Amino acid sequence: MSTTESAHRSVSEERLRDDITTNAEFGAIPAERGHGRTVLTGTEANRQARQYLLDRLEAAGLDVRIDAVGNVVGRWVSSGADPTAPAVACGSHLDSVPEGGIFDGVLGVYSALEAVRALKDTDRDLARPIDVVCFTEEEGGRFSNGLLGSSVASGNRSVEEALALEDDDGVTLETALTDIGFRGTDRVDASAWDAWLELHVEQAERLQETNAAVGIVSAIAGTIRCEIEIVGEADHSGSTTMAARTDALAAASELVLEVEAAANDVLAEHGDTVVGTVGKLDVSPNAINVVPGRAELGVDIRDVRYASMERIVERVRDRLAGLETERGVDVTFERPYDIAPSRMSDRCIAALEHAVSTVDAPSLSLHSGAGHDTMHVSDVTDAGMLFAPSRGGFSHSPREWTDWSSCTTATRVLTAGLQRLAEA
Amino acid sequence: MSTTESAHRSVSEERLRDDITTNAEFGAIPAERGHGRTVLTGTEANRQARQYLLDRLEAAGLDVRIDAVGNVVGRWVSSGADPTAPAVACGSHLDSVPEGGIFDGVLGVYSALEAVRALKDTDRDLARPIDVVCFTEEEGGRFSNGLLGSSVASGNRSVEEALALEDDDGVTLETALTDIGFRGTDRVDASAWDAWLELHVEQAERLQETNAAVGIVSAIAGTIRCEIEIVGEADHSGSTTMAARTDALAAASELVLEVEAAANDVLAEHGDTVVGTVGKLDVSPNAINVVPGRAELGVDIRDVRYASMERIVERVRDRLAGLETERGVDVTFERPYDIAPSRMSDRCIAALEHAVSTVDAPSLSLHSGAGHDTMHVSDVTDAGMLFAPSRGGFSHSPREWTDWSSCTTATRVLTAGLQRLAEA
Repeated sequence: MSTTESAHRSVSEERLRDDITTNAEFGAIPAERGHGRTVLTGTEANRQARQYLLDRLEAAGLDVRIDAVGNVVGRWVSSGADPTAPAVACGSHLDSVPEGGIFDGVLGVYSALEAVRALKDTDRDLARPIDVVCFTEEEGGRFSNGLLGSSVASGNRSVEEALALEDDDGVTLETALTDIGFRGTDRVDASAWDAWLELHVEQAERLQETNAAVGIVSAIAGTIRCEIEIVGEADHSGSTTMAARTDALAAASELVLEVEAAANDVLAEHGDTVVGTVGKLDVSPNAINVVPGRAELGVDIRDVRYASMERIVERVRDRLAGLETERGVDVTFERPYDIAPSRMSDRCIAALEHAVSTVDAPSLSLHSGAGHDTMHVSDVTDAGMLFAPSRGGFSHSPREWTDWSSCTTATRVLTAGLQRLAEA
Repeated sequence: MSTTESAHRSVSEERLRDDITTNAEFGAIPAERGHGRTVLTGTEANRQARQYLLDRLEAAGLDVRIDAVGNVVGRWVSSGADPTAPAVACGSHLDSVPEGGIFDGVLGVYSALEAVRALKDTDRDLARPIDVVCFTEEEGGRFSNGLLGSSVASGNRSVEEALALEDDDGVTLETALTDIGFRGTDRVDASAWDAWLELHVEQAERLQETNAAVGIVSAIAGTIRCEIEIVGEADHSGSTTMAARTDALAAASELVLEVEAAANDVLAEHGDTVVGTVGKLDVSPNAINVVPGRAELGVDIRDVRYASMERIVERVRDRLAGLETERGVDVTFERPYDIAPSRMSDRCIAALEHAVSTVDAPSLSLHSGAGHDTMHVSDVTDAGMLFAPSRGGFSHSPREWTDWSSCTTATRVLTAGLQRLAEA
């Protein structure tokens, strides 16, 4: 136990802060809009961020490799470790949403590196190698719906399929990675890892509200997305009587409210984790003097219980059928995105619980409503996830902020957790 | 009565059709999309359409003048008429919405000219001059909300104010009219007219459904437009609990349904003319994984009774106040467009009723849900309006169509109506 206690004390807030603030310069947006950056996969900003990571991994003495889809891994094998033993891996991502924050993903990558530096500084001998990982395109801003690199590392998507993905201009991921010098070889295989941890900013306010220093994630909500088109009839708003119209927006409005009501009804029965959102609604022709002829909606449903998500989808489909009968609209329904909830492994949760008691950091057990690379990794190995507090809950925005002291405390917990797992 | 009977018989379907089909070439859109055209004020297509009208007015022996805002008037004074007597005026407009039809407005201008040609052909001596009129920018596609030329002719807007109106590129109406050679002098003064008639396509299906050849308009619905902004809070759709969100789209959906319900409630109490529409809804940031932070709505309310329109506005405002209390959104409400309903004059309606019996055309008394230049003209002189049947009710679309025989019959009624008014 004494070794555990000292390793996390070697975590350096200064080194961590230097890495995160240097990384924040790549793709930085004008300062008057806050601490923001835009780092899409395969751009010059992404090349700079990746190159700086390579430099820092190598400066720390890690062996670096880049796989075919640009996932980066830096391996540290302590002097007493078995180099052939399955590694404990840890990391996140460096890409951002457009005008995103400087911590989302970045904290997870550089806290993993800082943990290794701290373990090296205190001369820890661990049983297993530690891999510091940066996955390609977690956010999905250019080539995918997100979680791209981890989907390949987990075997949920093939290398070939990933490389053939195209951006809006028809540029493939393969071309974009080749252009910035990050189209490597082979495939990072997450199933070869003994365990995985990811530290991420919370993107909500539960830690702040409870004064917890870190959150230990119990499960990551799954996501079902539905794309719905409602077709009515575009007509002159003045000369078409109320009885003669088939108003696609009025029908869509009923659906928006049904999604909200269904989520609240399921919440009332099954606790507090389910959410249902209509985030996107496009009306056509969208002119003040024309009865709407078409509405396209994007519905996003999340929960840690798949059955609860299915309940809301059923309510959506029932209401759509009702709208066809009652309002005479034509409806199409697609479900292009369906990711099951992920439970974190008991072994990783136990290691993180041990870590918070070691560091003496007040913690909260919570679920993640947002998706993370850890979802894919948890399909093939034991996974755990740690949250650091987000001030005001802001994320995907230049307003995103986590205090440096909070970053450091969470990194200490991560370090103790990694040590615990890598000692075994 | 014998003279009236013969004049309308001189109406030539061939001349009318030639004028309308020639006009349809100006700004024509590709033929595979139907019979469509795009003729915005001050464009080359608009110049061509105006020039052809000048040529046709002059070929018919009318004295043509162009006023400061581009309104065109061709005057015919029959040999026995008092040239100083207030004229009976008749016309419509030649501009179109983007990708509009070939009859909207055009039928009204060229039927007026054809009526004068028919009266001349049968050597009618009338007591009053007849003015054939083309108003500038009825549709409002470039410089205004519409009814531009008639607003100036009626004195509801000054020449100076109109000329200073700008398009999206900052070009003024004055510059645009000067560029195409149609910035004339003085002002057409609708209050100097003894009476006014406008023939227009119905843009609805009531005539088709009742097999009526023409519709005699009793009143034109007024229009109130409301522009509403609902501000909530944009948040991550996964990490923000249902209880923590302020969803601007859910609030907006309640408002859409309230507009519909309010219109139906007023209908149930006060007959069949009121309509309420949310035609425009813009959601921000409009991403499937973000709780909507802002919604902007455009509401369009019309009726022949102003009090009914006001009732719906009250319901809208009440619901907005409720949404602020119940959902915590911030709301702004504007009412930038407010036009009172227009009753057609009894004298003009009587002249048109006399005309339908003379022509022996089955007619229907109806209201106009759409706005027309006649609304402004009716503020300052006696006005009447006639509708020709629209196949399927389509308008503001290349699918707009009125059979040539229907155009001719309606023009015969117009001719008989004009003669009746100009004899007095």
